Amino acid sequence: MAAPAFYLTLRDALLDLIQRDQLPRPGCLPAERWLAEHFQTTRVTLRQALTQLESEGVIYRQHRKGWFVAPKKLVYEPVQDVSFTRYVTAQGRVPQTEVLGFVQLAAEERIAHQLELQPGDPVYRLIRRRFIDQRLVLVERVWMNARYLPQLEQQRFDQSLWRVFEEVYGIQLIDKQITLTPTALQHEEAAALCVTPGSPGLYITRRSATAQGEVIEYDEEYWLQDVMTVRITTQHA
Amino acid sequence: MAAPAFYLTLRDALLDLIQRDQLPRPGCLPAERWLAEHFQTTRVTLRQALTQLESEGVIYRQHRKGWFVAPKKLVYEPVQDVSFTRYVTAQGRVPQTEVLGFVQLAAEERIAHQLELQPGDPVYRLIRRRFIDQRLVLVERVWMNARYLPQLEQQRFDQSLWRVFEEVYGIQLIDKQITLTPTALQHEEAAALCVTPGSPGLYITRRSATAQGEVIEYDEEYWLQDVMTVRITTQHA
Repeated sequence: MAAPAFYLTLRDALLDLIQRDQLPRPGCLPAERWLAEHFQTTRVTLRQALTQLESEGVIYRQHRKGWFVAPKKLVYEPVQDVSFTRYVTAQGRVPQTEVLGFVQLAAEERIAHQLELQPGDPVYRLIRRRFIDQRLVLVERVWMNARYLPQLEQQRFDQSLWRVFEEVYGIQLIDKQITLTPTALQHEEAAALCVTPGSPGLYITRRSATAQGEVIEYDEEYWLQDVMTVRITTQHA
Repeated sequence: MAAPAFYLTLRDALLDLIQRDQLPRPGCLPAERWLAEHFQTTRVTLRQALTQLESEGVIYRQHRKGWFVAPKKLVYEPVQDVSFTRYVTAQGRVPQTEVLGFVQLAAEERIAHQLELQPGDPVYRLIRRRFIDQRLVLVERVWMNARYLPQLEQQRFDQSLWRVFEEVYGIQLIDKQITLTPTALQHEEAAALCVTPGSPGLYITRRSATAQGEVIEYDEEYWLQDVMTVRITTQHA
């Protein structure tokens, strides 16, 4: 990796074109031949710049149709953001939730451990898929401690769970422990997300507790790889 | 995605075996035939559990040799962690840094913007690869505002930059803005990391400033996909 090559300068110029809405036709890039002439470069170098922007999720290719501007990445700020519904909406996007299953069952060891329960204690398990602007982006399993959420089955689950916690149960989730791990999507998760097994994805877990340290929910989410950027702003003492 | 299938229970049992050091030979799994008999399951289901653990980075396969236990994932806590050298060492791993290039140059527009400079202002650019336990894990480009770091070229760059900032220049970086974006590794980054272009990776940027808001460095890192887990612990008011 020597000095940034010309294709990177070209990438910046293309990005500039896209971000300033200078495209002749909004939402799609001019033909590669036009771009190569416009930037006085070869098709090979242009292609490098384009695939770079493609791998960054800025543009995508459609067979025989050319290059299109991808929808902006969702920005997820784990330190601030609480509810998917809320932060997706705040970014001018349309969230949607599909419930795949809800059941009360006895906690397996792994889940009991996360919720600070004994194996066999009653928990709820909710399985959902979530969409942004009608695009399927994640599938999640949420386990909840049934003791704190009596008759949860009477609630609607196609909206924000955090809202239900707050408005119905008066529970505020203050402490969060979050992990983010790049992964390969396999088996049921790949099937639920309609991708080939082995496709790259992002695996997020979140353990949420009240200010008193009562662990209410443990959530496992599998995201498609190119949906979002995680942003963290922090100050050290 | 219905109820967790049997292979997931099997995954948990295998993980348990690995984590409790109950393996007949440490570091590698018994033959698949033995495992299938031991857990009274079919080879097909066993394979599902194994590929699940593989995609989670817990085990890996070697051609004709079987399944091995992968080194533990590095845990990166962006809110707390400052120096790669420090947090890798703290996890009992051995960090190593290879310098690929160091130069002073005039800031391009994109970099000037990040460092709050004018295009053309003097910046340093450092390119490095970093290793954990002798495994290549990331390549990075670091841009620094030359005004705050006179004669930086006299320093050693195969160690912690943060240490140089603190010990040589008395600069403490307090504010961090971090982004993490799953990506596909392309071109120079793929070459520097010795992977096929298009391989999944993690793209991290970090902008670091002093308490007075002076932006000292802007760092772009490309990580291999399976190296680490990001952990964030947070409390809401």
